[in-house]
Amino acid sequence: MSKLSSALLAVVLACGLGSSAFAQSDPLPSWNDGKAKQAILDFVGKVTRDGGPDFVPPEQRIATFDNDGTLWAEQPVYFQLQFALDEVKRLAAEKPELKDKEPYRSVLARDVRGLAANGGKGLQQVMAATHAGMTTDAFAAQVRNWLDTARHPTKQRPYTEMVYQPQIELLAYLRSQGFKTFIVSGGGVEFMRTFAEKAYGIPPEQVVGSSGSVTFRLGADGKPELLKTAKVEFVDDGPGKPVGINRFIGRRPILAFGNSDGDLQMLQYAAAGSGARLALIVHHTDAEREWAYDRQSPIGKLDKALDEGKTRGWIIVDMKTDWKTVFPTR
Amino acid sequence: MSKLSSALLAVVLACGLGSSAFAQSDPLPSWNDGKAKQAILDFVGKVTRDGGPDFVPPEQRIATFDNDGTLWAEQPVYFQLQFALDEVKRLAAEKPELKDKEPYRSVLARDVRGLAANGGKGLQQVMAATHAGMTTDAFAAQVRNWLDTARHPTKQRPYTEMVYQPQIELLAYLRSQGFKTFIVSGGGVEFMRTFAEKAYGIPPEQVVGSSGSVTFRLGADGKPELLKTAKVEFVDDGPGKPVGINRFIGRRPILAFGNSDGDLQMLQYAAAGSGARLALIVHHTDAEREWAYDRQSPIGKLDKALDEGKTRGWIIVDMKTDWKTVFPTR
Repeated sequence: MSKLSSALLAVVLACGLGSSAFAQSDPLPSWNDGKAKQAILDFVGKVTRDGGPDFVPPEQRIATFDNDGTLWAEQPVYFQLQFALDEVKRLAAEKPELKDKEPYRSVLARDVRGLAANGGKGLQQVMAATHAGMTTDAFAAQVRNWLDTARHPTKQRPYTEMVYQPQIELLAYLRSQGFKTFIVSGGGVEFMRTFAEKAYGIPPEQVVGSSGSVTFRLGADGKPELLKTAKVEFVDDGPGKPVGINRFIGRRPILAFGNSDGDLQMLQYAAAGSGARLALIVHHTDAEREWAYDRQSPIGKLDKALDEGKTRGWIIVDMKTDWKTVFPTR
Repeated sequence: MSKLSSALLAVVLACGLGSSAFAQSDPLPSWNDGKAKQAILDFVGKVTRDGGPDFVPPEQRIATFDNDGTLWAEQPVYFQLQFALDEVKRLAAEKPELKDKEPYRSVLARDVRGLAANGGKGLQQVMAATHAGMTTDAFAAQVRNWLDTARHPTKQRPYTEMVYQPQIELLAYLRSQGFKTFIVSGGGVEFMRTFAEKAYGIPPEQVVGSSGSVTFRLGADGKPELLKTAKVEFVDDGPGKPVGINRFIGRRPILAFGNSDGDLQMLQYAAAGSGARLALIVHHTDAEREWAYDRQSPIGKLDKALDEGKTRGWIIVDMKTDWKTVFPTR
């Protein structure tokens, strides 16, 4: 064998070994082997098998994920609500004259009844004071500032480290297989867009969420700006999720992943399309590493969707047994 | 020189020549050389020059295009309105009992006054009869059927051949340079999504448009479906365009292309961002190959945006002189 031939052979062998080693490496190392992981691998395998009976062209490989409780934690309260409460405190510290006014008084006094009074009017005031009356750019800057500095009350981690490592791997794996990954969440769209790209690799234009009305105006300097108002425009929860998917994506997902009854209609909608479909639910069963809650929880209640998921053969992911790790190691 | 060396040299030279030949090939062959074409090439060159002062990372290379009058023609009436009128005739032919009812009577009698009476109530009825009271899937099927069969009243071409060849090339060129291309149009989002992927290479999730309210329900067979209602939800025109961009894309475009006063705020918004920006307007100046209209036209009126564009140095594309061809050759 000539030197050239042997060098070429070495290259070919190396390439061959490399790609074979890659194909055998585990794309989901934080998932324990089991029914859930296998269902994911089987589904992705069959929809990407060119010429196979379940093949789906790449442009139709739409995957939608809920955010709170599906991609990151949601206890003891939704993190966006924690942001709002922290902002109220920050604003009151900056302007002491606010301290005796609502909703600042109730928040500072931890007066939950005051906030819940009048059909939750106090909470609406909290949201309005922290999410409206500013430009979209100013709001995004405040959220980023909060994410950089705030810590989760019990886990003492930055909120962006409260994401689920197995899901980060799943999102990356799906994208490597030609899927386009979307968030479809009840959370505020402008809130989530500030971190979704860095945390999940999901760009702003692939985040679907609830929104308040925004108005266009020419600012004092003649420059165009967008002003956030307190008027609720769209609630991307429950039956709002398939509506949001239709409005923002315009295609029915072939894979949907949720964790609560607020995801039921999204899961129904994805699962009912023709061809291969995968619907998954995170079941929070891990009181030690995360939290354990389902049917009775005021946050992330999972009741009807758990029953329907079991009946319909959706994949119920048991956090305690299916996830090797929950949060990213530092 | 050994055989190996000369073979390697041949490969290197071939690669070098190949890429040089590629770099010199014209990505916009249907654009005449001139100020507009040069401005596009210069802009794309500088935002993609890694390490240059105007470099923009690929994920921020957002380009937004109006549709009617910018990507395809809009005379003598918006094609979506032509669809609605054709649908009314089709429905009346299918159900003769409709012929004496509004809006069918006025459309069949070409009674423009009847349609415009009561503040355009007849037109609203036309839109409701043809765009609501059906599932999103059924509506999309009707639009596709119409696009397959209908012909433009004067040009006698299918409507999907009324797209502008220079713009098809521009969209493809931008995507080849790492841009993400979006439609941001006053047209109905579900109408445009039926053809945007095939006609422009723009997938459904990158189409932003006006929309009616849609509701989720479980159909008679228990299958989830989305029902289109006649309630207007969002008008993606004028100041609605930057609002729509914020809602659906969540990033400010660095390039925006329009053709009418309805695009003014989108152009202002894109142009006012920091860094390199390009705002462009199609000026319909070609009565022979297309149509000539601007300040006085009831369809696609271009008046304020033409003045502001000239003042601000936006690129006014003169269809007659800047475009070598207008429509694709068959």
